[in-house]
Amino acid sequence: MPRHGTMIPDTGAGRRRLMVGVKMSANPPDAGFFAAYTVKELAQGLRDGTFTAAELVREALASIDRLNPVLNAFVLVDREGAARAAAQADADFKAGTDRGPMQGIPVAVKDNIDTAGLVTTVGSAHFKTHVPKEDAECVRLLKEAGAIVIGKTLTHEFAYGPTADRSLQGAAKNPWDPSRMSGGSSGGSAVAVASGMVPLALGTDTGGSVRIPAALCGLTGFKPSYAAISASGVFPLSTTLDHVGILARSAEDAAALFPLLRDPAPQPKHKKARTSTLLTGWIPTGSFGASDTAVVTEVRQFAEALFGQAMRDVAQVAALTEVFASAIAAIQSAEAYEVHAERVAAHPELFDPEVLERLQSAGMVKGWEYVRALKQRKQLQATLAVFFERFDLLAMPTIGIVAPPLQERTLTLEGQEAPVARTLLTMTRPWNVVGLPAITIPAGQVDGLPVGLQLIAPMGWDAWLLDVAATLQARDLA
Amino acid sequence: MPRHGTMIPDTGAGRRRLMVGVKMSANPPDAGFFAAYTVKELAQGLRDGTFTAAELVREALASIDRLNPVLNAFVLVDREGAARAAAQADADFKAGTDRGPMQGIPVAVKDNIDTAGLVTTVGSAHFKTHVPKEDAECVRLLKEAGAIVIGKTLTHEFAYGPTADRSLQGAAKNPWDPSRMSGGSSGGSAVAVASGMVPLALGTDTGGSVRIPAALCGLTGFKPSYAAISASGVFPLSTTLDHVGILARSAEDAAALFPLLRDPAPQPKHKKARTSTLLTGWIPTGSFGASDTAVVTEVRQFAEALFGQAMRDVAQVAALTEVFASAIAAIQSAEAYEVHAERVAAHPELFDPEVLERLQSAGMVKGWEYVRALKQRKQLQATLAVFFERFDLLAMPTIGIVAPPLQERTLTLEGQEAPVARTLLTMTRPWNVVGLPAITIPAGQVDGLPVGLQLIAPMGWDAWLLDVAATLQARDLA
Repeated sequence: MPRHGTMIPDTGAGRRRLMVGVKMSANPPDAGFFAAYTVKELAQGLRDGTFTAAELVREALASIDRLNPVLNAFVLVDREGAARAAAQADADFKAGTDRGPMQGIPVAVKDNIDTAGLVTTVGSAHFKTHVPKEDAECVRLLKEAGAIVIGKTLTHEFAYGPTADRSLQGAAKNPWDPSRMSGGSSGGSAVAVASGMVPLALGTDTGGSVRIPAALCGLTGFKPSYAAISASGVFPLSTTLDHVGILARSAEDAAALFPLLRDPAPQPKHKKARTSTLLTGWIPTGSFGASDTAVVTEVRQFAEALFGQAMRDVAQVAALTEVFASAIAAIQSAEAYEVHAERVAAHPELFDPEVLERLQSAGMVKGWEYVRALKQRKQLQATLAVFFERFDLLAMPTIGIVAPPLQERTLTLEGQEAPVARTLLTMTRPWNVVGLPAITIPAGQVDGLPVGLQLIAPMGWDAWLLDVAATLQARDLA
Repeated sequence: MPRHGTMIPDTGAGRRRLMVGVKMSANPPDAGFFAAYTVKELAQGLRDGTFTAAELVREALASIDRLNPVLNAFVLVDREGAARAAAQADADFKAGTDRGPMQGIPVAVKDNIDTAGLVTTVGSAHFKTHVPKEDAECVRLLKEAGAIVIGKTLTHEFAYGPTADRSLQGAAKNPWDPSRMSGGSSGGSAVAVASGMVPLALGTDTGGSVRIPAALCGLTGFKPSYAAISASGVFPLSTTLDHVGILARSAEDAAALFPLLRDPAPQPKHKKARTSTLLTGWIPTGSFGASDTAVVTEVRQFAEALFGQAMRDVAQVAALTEVFASAIAAIQSAEAYEVHAERVAAHPELFDPEVLERLQSAGMVKGWEYVRALKQRKQLQATLAVFFERFDLLAMPTIGIVAPPLQERTLTLEGQEAPVARTLLTMTRPWNVVGLPAITIPAGQVDGLPVGLQLIAPMGWDAWLLDVAATLQARDLA
């Protein structure tokens, strides 16, 4: 039951999950230590003497040593810093100092997020040896909460791509099938959690970069409301679309971390009447480009099992797809090129060719198109606010396909060629344009690969969304 | 003395003005009825029976009938509506209903500001017969205060030009020399006030469009802080630069109107310590492009006479000129083209060729350049906020030349060719980029043509700026 008082109808979802034989917390083969624990269990274990923080760090390092050579999740492991932080956490426990649920918990940090004294490459040769002087605000808060930064995870170069297979450090590999992409750009963070190297990771999400790899790797991926977690100290991709997010094994795990990262500044929040029973609007995917029908069907059935009669189709939101797509293209392109203009001019050879080409094309977007896109964003926000007068949640697949093979750039879907990047982004990026909180939760498998259900909530309803997702997942796990 | 408590040093400005033989409220030859009155005198006269509102309207119409055929200030005169409003004002006075200092006062409204039921052309063939259904917010407030809208004044086509000599209705003429331009884009409003057709007019100012014609016509022109007067119902030129402003014969007159138009929503306001004596920073003009040395010298001497020892050069602000110029070019271009993109595509032939060319070039600005300009704006705002910790006012000429001949597009200044448009805008447009309140006050004459001193205040200090300017002018008139 969500603590906020909206009833979630019991539609027998647990039974249905058993029927199809897929556990939501399903693990890829050969997963590491943390695949077996929730954050709550780890926190409890640290307090009842089952584990020490030093032991958790050793387990993390052992899993990384065993799995990372194949999966390429971590691009830097801070053994010394992690050991030091673990010793501090253990000393704190011993002294009776308890900073809350993250104390002593190992966490991975995406490599576009500044870590003081640790090389932060942003996946790019331009920043091969770049060592930030200060922690990003979200890292500072992590450490303040007693969490242990284990290392830095692979990002698609400059976080500018949803495949995480182009970066200074190569490709992250999907733990469900290492010949396939993890999805990105926060690929390393997703792989690190999905493979059980760590229980939690920070990622960033500008068009889906937390939710895409989370969905393709069978995780929960949470992108909060815009600016709910400060992006200060995060290398910008597109400043009005960039969100810091969380990759976790469940919404409950993500919910343990989120309150500690939340920006204390007052955030906009949609004032809506709460319905007595959760009413969910399903967004039909037809207008979002070609999909794998089996994936969409699987996710839809999963959602029906969760929400039953309390779910209605909302074709009107789907009708906005083109506006969403053109708005995000203009906004992201103009903002991204602004960040890189001087680098593209001075050292184009230091970019991955695909990223460079994308940037050069981004640089061609016109100023008036950007201004138009900002107007469209405002209209979309207003339109969605109206939908949320009636619905509590919007739901749709996170992605309409399973993880494609590494380096694949086009797929045949519904009998036509479809670009992989667009297909990965098409259902996640609308929620960056409007800044609404969105979460992906595991929704079963197709061909042995995970698929995700995406839930979108009104502006500022971050904790509520995590709570609803956790309730749905708990029921399923029961 | 300003009511807000900062001492203005007495430097004998009044004596100096008498020496050079130019009264600040100097009138052009052959001026109309309102050249002889302050708004206060008119308001008093309406209350003590010297005038009725109907008489003031008749005087306005008589002046318009006599002068407008040459000067082309008004593009539409609403005889019927003005008579009706005057009858209402007189009935109100008779009934003892007093809505304040604007009741019964004739006002002119620039033709890019919506007036319900009155053709509003924005100076363009595209809107030749356009009749808005509602009043712009500023017009609604004018009427609510009992002011009488006499008619609509010429604007440069789409307010996109500082010369007011290209529009559906031709050129406004400078009352000091009708072979010269009024300056623009609010040329008609400036001419209407300067020639005594009306005591006050509304204009708009996106890069100087209130201050430029005010300075060239010998008026006071006030551009308040960004959004201090709502631009709702004003045809946009560049939405983050557009300001509604006031053209008046003195700051005192402008101050009678401003509080009635001010948006009641909370506005940002710079929190600065007030100095005990007004400290003014003079911005050297060397970096703003070529000027007429005689104009700059005249304005500088005027400022020295006003402020004396309490004025210091602030070369650091002048050093920002290039950033100001590139930021406003990108912002205005992108925003302006966004407004007109579909019109340029569908009916280019309905634009004035010069305006069309400017728009087409504006459409080429890149999205990333606009994003960069928004960043620069924030930096400039921060830098100026620091200056205003030390200074109360910034001062510089409003324009570095006197009114050029109509249709002139290049001038020879300091031995080189200089484009007229850039020369007119270079010192006014910085204050649109950062949204600070700025006022031009008459500062003498060069070759028998008016020149203006521009004063710039911290964000939100609108009433204070008007008060300081009024105090300076009152002393001068004494």
